[in-house]
Amino acid sequence: MVVHAHRSEAILGPDLVPVSGVLRVDDSGVIRGIAPHPEPGDEIIDHPDCALIPGGVNVHNHSFQALLRGLGDDLPFLEWRARGLYRYGAHLGPDEVYLGALLAFAEMLRSGTTTVCDFFYVHADGLDNDRAVLRAAKDLGIRCVLARTMYDWDGAPLSFRETIDDAVTRSQQLRSEIADDPLLSLQPAPHSLHGASSPMIEAGVALAKDWHSPCHTHIAEESYQRQEALDQWGIGPVEHLEHQGWLNERSVLVHAIWLEKNELDAIAKAGASIAHCPASNMFLGDGVTPVNAYLNRGVTVGLGTDGGCTNSRHSVYDEARSCSMLAKVDACDGAALSAETAFTLATIGGADLLQLPTGRLEAGYQADFSVIRLDDLSMQPVHNLAKNIVHSMTERAIAEVYVAGRRVVADGHVLHLDAHWLSLELKALAGRWRAAP
Amino acid sequence: MVVHAHRSEAILGPDLVPVSGVLRVDDSGVIRGIAPHPEPGDEIIDHPDCALIPGGVNVHNHSFQALLRGLGDDLPFLEWRARGLYRYGAHLGPDEVYLGALLAFAEMLRSGTTTVCDFFYVHADGLDNDRAVLRAAKDLGIRCVLARTMYDWDGAPLSFRETIDDAVTRSQQLRSEIADDPLLSLQPAPHSLHGASSPMIEAGVALAKDWHSPCHTHIAEESYQRQEALDQWGIGPVEHLEHQGWLNERSVLVHAIWLEKNELDAIAKAGASIAHCPASNMFLGDGVTPVNAYLNRGVTVGLGTDGGCTNSRHSVYDEARSCSMLAKVDACDGAALSAETAFTLATIGGADLLQLPTGRLEAGYQADFSVIRLDDLSMQPVHNLAKNIVHSMTERAIAEVYVAGRRVVADGHVLHLDAHWLSLELKALAGRWRAAP
Repeated sequence: MVVHAHRSEAILGPDLVPVSGVLRVDDSGVIRGIAPHPEPGDEIIDHPDCALIPGGVNVHNHSFQALLRGLGDDLPFLEWRARGLYRYGAHLGPDEVYLGALLAFAEMLRSGTTTVCDFFYVHADGLDNDRAVLRAAKDLGIRCVLARTMYDWDGAPLSFRETIDDAVTRSQQLRSEIADDPLLSLQPAPHSLHGASSPMIEAGVALAKDWHSPCHTHIAEESYQRQEALDQWGIGPVEHLEHQGWLNERSVLVHAIWLEKNELDAIAKAGASIAHCPASNMFLGDGVTPVNAYLNRGVTVGLGTDGGCTNSRHSVYDEARSCSMLAKVDACDGAALSAETAFTLATIGGADLLQLPTGRLEAGYQADFSVIRLDDLSMQPVHNLAKNIVHSMTERAIAEVYVAGRRVVADGHVLHLDAHWLSLELKALAGRWRAAP
Repeated sequence: MVVHAHRSEAILGPDLVPVSGVLRVDDSGVIRGIAPHPEPGDEIIDHPDCALIPGGVNVHNHSFQALLRGLGDDLPFLEWRARGLYRYGAHLGPDEVYLGALLAFAEMLRSGTTTVCDFFYVHADGLDNDRAVLRAAKDLGIRCVLARTMYDWDGAPLSFRETIDDAVTRSQQLRSEIADDPLLSLQPAPHSLHGASSPMIEAGVALAKDWHSPCHTHIAEESYQRQEALDQWGIGPVEHLEHQGWLNERSVLVHAIWLEKNELDAIAKAGASIAHCPASNMFLGDGVTPVNAYLNRGVTVGLGTDGGCTNSRHSVYDEARSCSMLAKVDACDGAALSAETAFTLATIGGADLLQLPTGRLEAGYQADFSVIRLDDLSMQPVHNLAKNIVHSMTERAIAEVYVAGRRVVADGHVLHLDAHWLSLELKALAGRWRAAP
């Protein structure tokens, strides 16, 4: 089997201390290890003046929302939902969903995000839209988990909703359709305590147990959602999860902002994980996920961009910066959350949360990595590589991106995307929406 | 006189409603106006699929701090100051100051910042360092205000300090040296209530009065600085400014975080301005400048990146996003501060604060503008141009930048910079500092 030796002066392993040498990747896209020199027979790929760093893992996104960018911005949450999300998101077909996913995933790849978990719920009573998301991921070459959402709240648009039977059957079917694809997978995602009925959540939790898979749920994003739980059950939202037997080591709680200490303790005790979306927290004015409180309890935390109309960017490296900055200003402490911690959450934290062998430049893991120009203005001077990556790096420093050892971005261009065609399609779509909103 | 007609489908005037047509710029770099069509004799410059937007105005920076990026990150404020700023900033000579300014200004230009106010205090008992900053600005073609700092606190490194006589005389001399340069100017900047003695502040305030110029001072960045004022004078820091007769329509107060309502009222009444540095607030864990409280009082607010080791980025468009996001999360309200308001602060607000005829694509103003690729991934779909510029645009969308009608950035490259040479110089500098820190 051919081994590719990516040679660089600065390879960033999990300890974030750059070493000079080669990242050895076999033909199946798996890392053999980091070594000082190539071995005889290795095919050498030189990356002069560049660093190799793990690709970002985006644990929470809604790719179709990239289409809505600019339409619901700068509104209070419920108005944003009504005037942006529900108004424009409800009527999307596979062609539009495909465009949205191409846009979101292309921006992710270009910014060094090699894995995305797409929390997708515009099912339109079938699987065609879901398949369109997966097709976009496959076309561009990004590693993609479809967090197939289970949604039956009648306050949401019809196209988001399914019966419990349909949700379960379709999830099972789509999962079997992609079973042989090494880059694609499916995980269940009962939407939230307000978006999914108790039997629907039960069904999602059961699927996750069957599949030994993470199970994604929005929780306590807005303060009123905590109040709803108190009104309905007399206890907090995570207490409710716990009492129902839904909180376990497979639970991925998205946002998890408005919780009490005993709920944080319960999350830690159960071994559940947190999907933290700092820029979305800020953009929507949600509040601040108490990320240090989770980390201090040993909880696994990954970072997400959230949807394209709740951020409005798609870079997980950028989320690492937002994560650090938000924790600092929230605590009024410049040492509250370091670049190194933030970068670890954006890579290893996300991979652990999704239970995928990525996020680390280490033997046995997938070769998902970015090639960073050390001579780019935004990386200089290189006193401390990890700090520059998080705090100062801009997209222009990201030269190439590899997923499973395959190059998918070169010189800032997403190789398997016709970017001009996409821009024309999106221009036409924006025109249609303006004409008949 | 030749008029250049920059033709575009989306020219963003001060009302932020894009219009199709031409931006007419005369040979002296002044905007003649926006018109539907060129006039006979105009030299037409086409910008297909691009928008023309005003360049950003960076009202507060310390360019030499770009050299320190990564050295003092993720520390509490006073440790950051001791281990980063004072340790490495104290011994800089003109060559190093020049490199730092080149790096900072090049990153600004590349990200669409066309004006910078550099608050500079590493005078090293003379003017050579100051001249090095201005030389870097001139070489790259950025519009630059040197806020020449007046500093005599003996807690600071010797190289920052001057006698009052020296500070005044040197400021006057340097101002006269650059009097004929249309892109360069000088404004006085008594450092802060702790960094400058009362007679030094008096001297700075007097220079500003003589010159009809803004007068820059850091104020209430950290909560302990408010406490120091209370301990020393029994009143808040802005009350102290007011009582001393130092607060007037020329005052530019940098940060202005830890103030009481009566102090905000006093600022508004005096007609003073605020330099708001949102990313620096976050990075250093300072707190949150109450930007809406200032805007509601009619106070002029501009945005600053602050120094390269307190952010660590140099894009004012990015500060507009940070400004909006920080205000939203601080108020838990997604509507707290819109993209349009943030962009106006980053352009018009900054220009008004610095009293410079820039920040607007309008007849009579300087032709300082960026050319934005509308077909870049980060700008799509274009439902709302201003919102995309602030919330989603990444640096790759910025194709060209003009200052006073002259192109200084093309295809993302700073035209008058040898970027490879700079990267080698900075690599050598980082090596020297590592060897003998």
